[in-house]
Amino acid sequence: MKLQALEGLPEIPIGDDLPARLAKLVPPGPGILVVAQKIVSKAEGRIVSLADVVPSPEARALAQKIGKEPRHTELVLREAKRVVRTAPGVLITETKHGLVCANSGVDLSNAPGEEIAVLLPLDPDASAERIRAALGPGRAVIVSDTFGRPWREGLVDVAIGVAGLAPLRSYIGETDRAGRELQVTVMARADQIAAAAGILMEKDAGVPAVWVEGIEISGKGSLRDLLRDPARDLFR
Amino acid sequence: MKLQALEGLPEIPIGDDLPARLAKLVPPGPGILVVAQKIVSKAEGRIVSLADVVPSPEARALAQKIGKEPRHTELVLREAKRVVRTAPGVLITETKHGLVCANSGVDLSNAPGEEIAVLLPLDPDASAERIRAALGPGRAVIVSDTFGRPWREGLVDVAIGVAGLAPLRSYIGETDRAGRELQVTVMARADQIAAAAGILMEKDAGVPAVWVEGIEISGKGSLRDLLRDPARDLFR
Repeated sequence: MKLQALEGLPEIPIGDDLPARLAKLVPPGPGILVVAQKIVSKAEGRIVSLADVVPSPEARALAQKIGKEPRHTELVLREAKRVVRTAPGVLITETKHGLVCANSGVDLSNAPGEEIAVLLPLDPDASAERIRAALGPGRAVIVSDTFGRPWREGLVDVAIGVAGLAPLRSYIGETDRAGRELQVTVMARADQIAAAAGILMEKDAGVPAVWVEGIEISGKGSLRDLLRDPARDLFR
Repeated sequence: MKLQALEGLPEIPIGDDLPARLAKLVPPGPGILVVAQKIVSKAEGRIVSLADVVPSPEARALAQKIGKEPRHTELVLREAKRVVRTAPGVLITETKHGLVCANSGVDLSNAPGEEIAVLLPLDPDASAERIRAALGPGRAVIVSDTFGRPWREGLVDVAIGVAGLAPLRSYIGETDRAGRELQVTVMARADQIAAAAGILMEKDAGVPAVWVEGIEISGKGSLRDLLRDPARDLFR
């Protein structure tokens, strides 16, 4: 298994044909392209100037309570299905896609200029599929973002959109060396790959795309496969 | 960045000199060895025959309530600092190490024979350090285990012990391309590496060790760095 950072990606302009740009950069042969959400969102114009945002009374009250920027808070609430947890400086929401993450994934960091917020793609699976179509057969695409976790310090990258591979790898019905049926049965393959690629997406170097070779590419699926049914979730 | 499965690891016997065995298998040069918890635990004798376990009344009651094996439940509670969540078939605990995971990491799968439970190493950092010492300078070691997550389906590998590298990579004080101070400041580097290695630890193939090259190895630290202070945790 080999991972390489894709060089030659400048600051992506709004409306950029990102799939065509990426297709020129990926090496030949089969592989999985992991693309950071931020450049996908920029290319798709999912950018809002904070100067254009008027916070609602609800957003203003919440922002004051937890010590966050009111216009940022407004955007977070607009992108959210609901608020999961709040604490000083912390706003964890469930996005309309069903992702549970900080700030609905609305990020003020690394934006092109001051006072700009970058929202998650409207449909990250569709974003991944557009890139996959440009890459041609034998290739899969994961759109990744950097999330925190309960219980553990530090962030890891996870998949927020997939195209051309099954995001879960099931071992149900398979047995271990001793012939016993496996207890651990479903690995989050797309998240494993996103986490691996994240190592090369150094935040300061700003590498927004990583090419992964040497993994079997099989099946298909979508972000939904990776999202736990809220009714079965013990921490929501 | 390159990852390769280490071949030539048989079923590990209790009391095996695992560090010496691994030192013979790793390629020359710098790199990070990720070792699955299960073989570390076996070599260290962290194995219990269920026939020797007498469940306490507390374990019996909990096992009946959530539909688990009473002797397994007893071992889970013995390894736990406290119970975090229960549900039918689900027992999430905080281990004495401070790890929050299913069943205190006590696993019945892939054990050498029936009715055997494999416990987590008593001190996974010390386990990692013993292996690191056998590998010599320029090498780091991560002991990994496979955990579920809230909110998302599927399992990923995380670090439960580290030696020879800092488990967190901090970008605090660094700036993005636009010169703005980064909001995302600390990556869980050891977890990213464990997740990447997990891709090659296919559950059916049973590869328990993966060699990772091409990542900067710097700093030092321990599992504690990866564990969120319970007082600051919103989901415990």
